[in-house]
Amino acid sequence: MDLVLPEYSDVIKAHDLIRDYIHRTPVMSSKSINAIFNAEIYFKCENFQKVGAFKFRGATNAIMSLPEEAATRGVGTHSSGNHAAALCLAARMRGIPAYIVMPRTAPRIKIIAVEGYGGKITFCEPTLEARESTMNEILKQTGAVFIPSYNHFKIIAGQGTAARELLEETGTLDIVMAPVGGGGLMSGTALSTKAMSPETRVIAVEPVNADDAFRSFYSGKIIPSVNPDTIADGLLTSLGTLTFAIIREKVDEIVTVTEYSIIEAMRMIWERMKIIVEPSGSVPLAALIEKKIDFEGKRIGIILSGGNVDLNKLPFSQS
Amino acid sequence: MDLVLPEYSDVIKAHDLIRDYIHRTPVMSSKSINAIFNAEIYFKCENFQKVGAFKFRGATNAIMSLPEEAATRGVGTHSSGNHAAALCLAARMRGIPAYIVMPRTAPRIKIIAVEGYGGKITFCEPTLEARESTMNEILKQTGAVFIPSYNHFKIIAGQGTAARELLEETGTLDIVMAPVGGGGLMSGTALSTKAMSPETRVIAVEPVNADDAFRSFYSGKIIPSVNPDTIADGLLTSLGTLTFAIIREKVDEIVTVTEYSIIEAMRMIWERMKIIVEPSGSVPLAALIEKKIDFEGKRIGIILSGGNVDLNKLPFSQS
Repeated sequence: MDLVLPEYSDVIKAHDLIRDYIHRTPVMSSKSINAIFNAEIYFKCENFQKVGAFKFRGATNAIMSLPEEAATRGVGTHSSGNHAAALCLAARMRGIPAYIVMPRTAPRIKIIAVEGYGGKITFCEPTLEARESTMNEILKQTGAVFIPSYNHFKIIAGQGTAARELLEETGTLDIVMAPVGGGGLMSGTALSTKAMSPETRVIAVEPVNADDAFRSFYSGKIIPSVNPDTIADGLLTSLGTLTFAIIREKVDEIVTVTEYSIIEAMRMIWERMKIIVEPSGSVPLAALIEKKIDFEGKRIGIILSGGNVDLNKLPFSQS
Repeated sequence: MDLVLPEYSDVIKAHDLIRDYIHRTPVMSSKSINAIFNAEIYFKCENFQKVGAFKFRGATNAIMSLPEEAATRGVGTHSSGNHAAALCLAARMRGIPAYIVMPRTAPRIKIIAVEGYGGKITFCEPTLEARESTMNEILKQTGAVFIPSYNHFKIIAGQGTAARELLEETGTLDIVMAPVGGGGLMSGTALSTKAMSPETRVIAVEPVNADDAFRSFYSGKIIPSVNPDTIADGLLTSLGTLTFAIIREKVDEIVTVTEYSIIEAMRMIWERMKIIVEPSGSVPLAALIEKKIDFEGKRIGIILSGGNVDLNKLPFSQS
């Protein structure tokens, strides 16, 4: 069966639909970081997006696109991260219920976030099987619509609006970079960038300790993520059929970075820009620290994917 | 001898002089913080100012105001904090030397900052006497102009530009708050606020563990800070003659807050606004947490004084 992939026109439609619900986040630069790399770097600050992550764009697009009758029965997902929080807030804005299945081992801080946005949580055993069967049970009972966290037409189109706003503001760039986990942000970013500025190189960055997208991209088939072990906890998932198809076609290069560089990049952003970015959002800058790409003298856009960190679990050594 | 105090017209002059050198920092709000306090709070983000603190405004005004002949011999100070860094960067912008006296026990991170901005450091014993005698020796040798960190006409006028920008953006506010240490920011804030919006209440906030300004204000004479012990390391100093005179006349109220509330306020700003603010900058919000003032339903401006923290010495417990 042929996949139906979103195109840039779907990103534009998404943007028109969600514009009044999302923040148009600022694009920031740091003279001192530019001086370190001898480049002009433009950070699209999705850490300032509602719920603290780009995920709110896709979730809002998915929910606001639902026909009225389907919407009233609500939506559900079994992500425990930013997607769950985003779905709950978008559902609340539409006035419909959001059913979230979470492993009973989920960090307290994530449970609090989902509760705070009005999500109806069901806890399950911490296995994928338990999550899926619990979710299916709830969907059957409620008639709610399942909204996955990235492998979904409307989610991808929604995430593409971040790069669109970035390029609207900066004009042509030599390079646009984003982190890649499940590929929702990365495929949306590639869609917008290649449509708005075909000459721009689109580069995905991934932790070497969770390098399934890297291996999938260069082998030409989806290789699942097995026991990923990285501080970039937003990048643990495997590519999906839709995201992989778009990334294969539109991304120029995937590079990997070490845990050490991710933490250094995070420290650099915190110290020099005075903004809080989560490890996953620091991954693209880590590729510059490791000189994995040719960046000197270039104009580079980076999507800072989010800013949700547990301040009681920071990677900086406390003396 | 009568003191010559800066007035609002001096803030305007300062603004015209420094506008092209400083950042016009953003004014940010957080829906979730507003909901917690049932108030509209506007944060003037001086953590995004050059060198990461409002101090750059006053230092730039002092340096750019110097007559050419005096300026060429350079400037000096014996602050080891944000003022020293600010003075060094402003001096570099004018192309003149900055001589900084620092105790040999100063934190490495502060030494690196001053060196990074091109300051010429002389180390001394960690006593006030040693700092002053070492400084005087250098001033004698070089002919440099001493620029103190707060009790100085041009410094106060420069710091007042932050509140001016805030009120230009927000229009009338019910309350404007700032932290008070030596009183440079506080007196400048009061000057601008009372001139632009006479009905606005101006409230200074101070750690209870360094409450010399509070005691000075209510006793009517300067009481020096003795052994202050607070995480808000920008607020350890005593008021000066100029800052005290302005604060007495223009500030409506000084309230004190505990260390616990300062850390809670800092956590609230980091978690909900995704920006890095130093403990001193979190002090005004701590007064809302402690309900020390009447804030419900009010429009409140807060000067977030700076964002320079040592990420290896954070007050959040690491689990």
